[in-house]
Amino acid sequence: LWVKKVIATACERSRLLIFTGGLGPTPDDLTTATLADFFDVPLVEHPEVVADIAAKFARLGRQMAPSNRKQALLPYGANVLKNTLGTAPGMIWQPLPELTILTFPGVPAELHRMWTEVAVPYFHQRQWVQTTIQSQMLKFWGIPESTLAEKVADFLTLQNPTVAPYANIGEVKLRVAAQAPTAAEAQALIQPVAEQLQAIAGIDYFGSDHDTLASVVGNLLQQTQTTLGVAESCTGGGVGQALTDIPGSSDYFWGGVIAYDNRVKLQLLQVDAQTLATQGAVSAAVAEQMAQGIQKALGVGWGLSITGIAGPSGGSDDKPVGLVYIGVAHPNGSVTSSKHRFGDRGREIIRRLSVSTALDQLRRQLLVGYQP
Amino acid sequence: LWVKKVIATACERSRLLIFTGGLGPTPDDLTTATLADFFDVPLVEHPEVVADIAAKFARLGRQMAPSNRKQALLPYGANVLKNTLGTAPGMIWQPLPELTILTFPGVPAELHRMWTEVAVPYFHQRQWVQTTIQSQMLKFWGIPESTLAEKVADFLTLQNPTVAPYANIGEVKLRVAAQAPTAAEAQALIQPVAEQLQAIAGIDYFGSDHDTLASVVGNLLQQTQTTLGVAESCTGGGVGQALTDIPGSSDYFWGGVIAYDNRVKLQLLQVDAQTLATQGAVSAAVAEQMAQGIQKALGVGWGLSITGIAGPSGGSDDKPVGLVYIGVAHPNGSVTSSKHRFGDRGREIIRRLSVSTALDQLRRQLLVGYQP
Repeated sequence: LWVKKVIATACERSRLLIFTGGLGPTPDDLTTATLADFFDVPLVEHPEVVADIAAKFARLGRQMAPSNRKQALLPYGANVLKNTLGTAPGMIWQPLPELTILTFPGVPAELHRMWTEVAVPYFHQRQWVQTTIQSQMLKFWGIPESTLAEKVADFLTLQNPTVAPYANIGEVKLRVAAQAPTAAEAQALIQPVAEQLQAIAGIDYFGSDHDTLASVVGNLLQQTQTTLGVAESCTGGGVGQALTDIPGSSDYFWGGVIAYDNRVKLQLLQVDAQTLATQGAVSAAVAEQMAQGIQKALGVGWGLSITGIAGPSGGSDDKPVGLVYIGVAHPNGSVTSSKHRFGDRGREIIRRLSVSTALDQLRRQLLVGYQP
Repeated sequence: LWVKKVIATACERSRLLIFTGGLGPTPDDLTTATLADFFDVPLVEHPEVVADIAAKFARLGRQMAPSNRKQALLPYGANVLKNTLGTAPGMIWQPLPELTILTFPGVPAELHRMWTEVAVPYFHQRQWVQTTIQSQMLKFWGIPESTLAEKVADFLTLQNPTVAPYANIGEVKLRVAAQAPTAAEAQALIQPVAEQLQAIAGIDYFGSDHDTLASVVGNLLQQTQTTLGVAESCTGGGVGQALTDIPGSSDYFWGGVIAYDNRVKLQLLQVDAQTLATQGAVSAAVAEQMAQGIQKALGVGWGLSITGIAGPSGGSDDKPVGLVYIGVAHPNGSVTSSKHRFGDRGREIIRRLSVSTALDQLRRQLLVGYQP
């Protein structure tokens, strides 16, 4: 009832209604039935959807449950919006001449894929968009948002393109957005500004849009035709996971050792027992030995290591929670390490900052330090 | 201007306004200034906030930028809402007798922590909440949402507590929620229903609320006083990362090998070259050898391994993208493996399903297969 009131209000003031969620097989999934009821239109079963759902279950070696049949029911006159990931399809429906309804499943991964692959092309095809807004997201690591904003203060007052700063944990971004009749004209407004911003930021700028620290490091490893192994303590595999998020990472990433317990540091990374005893596991010396240890164990070009205190316990006055050492063993045989104090900001944030900072340290070495 | 119109509308119909974001140091961070302007109240600098921000920068070994000073300005009469993670504090302000305004930073981690630590206790203290809703989230792995919903169909029509199913990639949940004057009365309504649901689901039920597969596996390892090592191929460190998300995991998790390249499988896990050549890296035999290899290399009780094809490339008719083998080496010397077909649902989803399914396989062995 409450939902119908919302639909009535929305119809009064909008020509496009988008619904997400409530398309599943269970009794509380009521989106489609409620819409059909509101516009007083019967539900019709789409046999091709039944077949598609049954095929998806079969591929997973499962039987389709009878309740899944419900997901093939759409209001008379509606068209199926294909769901390439899950079982529930959405729909495009024009119940009235001036009203279009789109429904999408609520599962974020499915919604995201259907939105970009189906909905956006649909809007363009219908020419609901007269001018276009293009944008480029510039990404930075190793500089606080406030410092960057002051460096580029003159740009933040521009009108077209606009330049807006964003910050998340550790990462700072500048979004350069322009509006113009065509995408090419918008890009022509963005390009010179983006280049100036990159020049001002220097090495703290690491990439744009879909670039991540892991993908940028991957590209640099590809370009220099070098290979990488990782030795991770407090991050427990997070650097390896970030690197292998990138398809094709097997070209340059061979693997690594998760040396969470000190015995693993000794056995698989040949860290010196004496050094471990005198300096402690969280020290520059151990970080450097871990980086060299993985380089040697795998026979790779670069060795990257992390050892630190993620907390909540394990900190001391001398070595507080948030203290992290990162080691980089270089293909030329040299090794360096860097010390980072992320503060007691919680285990999850310390680990995320550690992963990204390690990738960033390797990026800097690949950019400035590498002489093949 | 548009924001002020929204504030005016919101004031008409609400007694509590909550703002998130726009509290940063840059020129486009306008929330506080706009609110002060709307209610025609001057901004006042809070010296203790300036000191707090400066201290936070100092702890990170950085200088506070002049623009950060802006974050210490609040409308006259407003109280500071402490931000324990980032620099920007929020505020609690009653600009009119019947209107309370809360502001929070937009960074998700900071917002989340301040909401639970500051806002929720504030609502309770003000007694804005007359009855309480308590809920318990039951979590399941290894059963499709539709199958579970049919098994527990009678429960889905209950009124108090209500039982509602949720699904994400692989994980299925039932939320049991009850409303009552006190928390204890609500819990008394929830408890018997939750127990019946758990009994119906059997071993597919793995935990409640904040439990994760990694935390449940961790508890079982603690209880059985056994240790664990992992050997990961297609997940690249994801299982290690999930396990080490849990504080105290060093008690039972020693580490592992990321064997992304086959050379690492041979060198560090002693996988047999002949098996690798004849069966291929993605096979039951290699999964079992990897699990036994890490068990032996680290000297741990349990060895857990994953080898599979995450895609987008690398699949064949015989071994399609989404095919994953999971190996479990048991403290008693035996080893088992299981074969999973996740389908070509994208690299990210296949990797996430692989990590969770590996933890779930170990959980099942720990629950039913372990005889110390």
